[in-house]
Amino acid sequence: MTTTFITGAAGFIGSNLTDRLLGRGEAVVGYDNFSTGQENFLVTAKLHENFRLIRGDLLDEKALTEAMAGCQRVVHLAANADVRFGLQHPRRDLEQNTIGTFNVLEAMRTHGIRDLAFSSTGSVYGEATVIPTPEDAPMPVQTSLYGASKLAGEGMISAYAEGYGLRARIFRFVSILGPRYSHGHVFDFYQQLRRDPKKLRVLGDGTQRKSYLAVDDCLDAILLCLDREEALAENKGFTHIYNLGTNEYCQVNDSIRWICGALGVEPEIHYTGGDRGWVGDNPFIFLGTKKIRSLGWEPHSTIRAGVEATVAWLQANPWIFSQR
Amino acid sequence: MTTTFITGAAGFIGSNLTDRLLGRGEAVVGYDNFSTGQENFLVTAKLHENFRLIRGDLLDEKALTEAMAGCQRVVHLAANADVRFGLQHPRRDLEQNTIGTFNVLEAMRTHGIRDLAFSSTGSVYGEATVIPTPEDAPMPVQTSLYGASKLAGEGMISAYAEGYGLRARIFRFVSILGPRYSHGHVFDFYQQLRRDPKKLRVLGDGTQRKSYLAVDDCLDAILLCLDREEALAENKGFTHIYNLGTNEYCQVNDSIRWICGALGVEPEIHYTGGDRGWVGDNPFIFLGTKKIRSLGWEPHSTIRAGVEATVAWLQANPWIFSQR
Repeated sequence: MTTTFITGAAGFIGSNLTDRLLGRGEAVVGYDNFSTGQENFLVTAKLHENFRLIRGDLLDEKALTEAMAGCQRVVHLAANADVRFGLQHPRRDLEQNTIGTFNVLEAMRTHGIRDLAFSSTGSVYGEATVIPTPEDAPMPVQTSLYGASKLAGEGMISAYAEGYGLRARIFRFVSILGPRYSHGHVFDFYQQLRRDPKKLRVLGDGTQRKSYLAVDDCLDAILLCLDREEALAENKGFTHIYNLGTNEYCQVNDSIRWICGALGVEPEIHYTGGDRGWVGDNPFIFLGTKKIRSLGWEPHSTIRAGVEATVAWLQANPWIFSQR
Repeated sequence: MTTTFITGAAGFIGSNLTDRLLGRGEAVVGYDNFSTGQENFLVTAKLHENFRLIRGDLLDEKALTEAMAGCQRVVHLAANADVRFGLQHPRRDLEQNTIGTFNVLEAMRTHGIRDLAFSSTGSVYGEATVIPTPEDAPMPVQTSLYGASKLAGEGMISAYAEGYGLRARIFRFVSILGPRYSHGHVFDFYQQLRRDPKKLRVLGDGTQRKSYLAVDDCLDAILLCLDREEALAENKGFTHIYNLGTNEYCQVNDSIRWICGALGVEPEIHYTGGDRGWVGDNPFIFLGTKKIRSLGWEPHSTIRAGVEATVAWLQANPWIFSQR
């Protein structure tokens, strides 16, 4: 039985992946420092005999290495995913993302584990000059510490693939939506409207164009690549980089409309103005996904359906607002 | 009087830059941990009243921050520049290059110093698909921990430019040659021939195509950009990325011929074989330099002249071979 080591297993994507793998009859060792992860997300998983949860930090090399023993592959999702506030604590992206990823790589090397999937981000493209942005877009200038730290992670992973035979799949995500979504702008809008359905404050002018993907579609892609490429059982290391996103994008204003529609509210909207929400915000994210589609993957959910499913989950889980 | 803070001031490029700036009547604070730097390189500088040398490591944040007080600009050259042996100690590139660069950025932020020049590398292009390789080449896959760590440094620097108003010049170098050159393959070949002029062991098949630049030409480019862009006195941060190299490349075999010619030796050459010297070696490095040339810069030395000047310096400085 394959045992997958998942960093950030108590997070939004990690807990969904945990449930999915356990549902396939596989085993999971979850690793999380619970800085943003939620015990509640693992309630079902914890009932499962094939699941083991270890509370630990990526910066604790010893604990991380011990926890990984006996696993055959690693899905490295743990990260400081807080793009917007990077400038308030610049060391956090370095530590949690760059150094954390290095420690994952070293722990894998210690155990001879060669299969890795890594959650990178469309933010590595900075303000892309080619849209839809392909994986081999012109080398960008980084605009956020988050993007920079994820690109640093990608670079080390690729160097390990070249030097130590790691089989690496790097996924550059757009924003992910769905059950257990608990940060980002749909969350922020919902939270504001929950407090006061008559007012909504929007960073920027609302015309920023964003791209989203439903978490189930995201997991389909990750598992497709892991299953497919493990079956090939190549002895050489490799780095495969895949963008993940839908074939559509929306404006921030569209998502506001869908959220308000789902909630039946009509707030007065106050825009802070400008074509971006914050320093380092990207006014237009839209990733080309030809490469992952060529493997037979396609997303099943539209952005609108993803936003609505997220709102439905937030409505059903009010406890999440007392956790932060 | 402008005071420039130079990390790696006792190194090959750093000590040459120190001498150049002192010669222009400017002041220099040199910072070096002497892991590979040489006191001997600073013999002249130390006689100068405008020079102050501080022995310290980039990982010692407190010492680094204190040392930088009173400086107006930073040229960050200190690095683990050992591309070839990265796989033997993977943490070194992370610490000395990635974390070290972060600490430089934080120290600059503490003091409100906004002008930075950074030595990156053509290795960030991995095995480039476009040659000559322009600054906006297709996003590469990293093949060495060294390249990955320099790209990580570039990313953080750019994010600081966007977020904190840093004025950043990033230079992607080919290999640099000239007086005080003390590692790399011309050094290795010379060292072998010094021990035994009859035998030379060459990694790879000798057909790898490499590009080199003379250290004086390299310093011309760095100073041109610093002087020019400081004069513009923009209030906004920026990231300018420039490739630095000559308009030519040579084969490893060419450089062997020039070295042997300069030394008057005819060794038997043993090739280890293969189209690259080591895992992560790049069989063809040739950078497009239109961007820096558009500012009026051009190199004065050919690769051959650079190799010969290096050999002449090594012949005049046999002490360097007892330092490592």
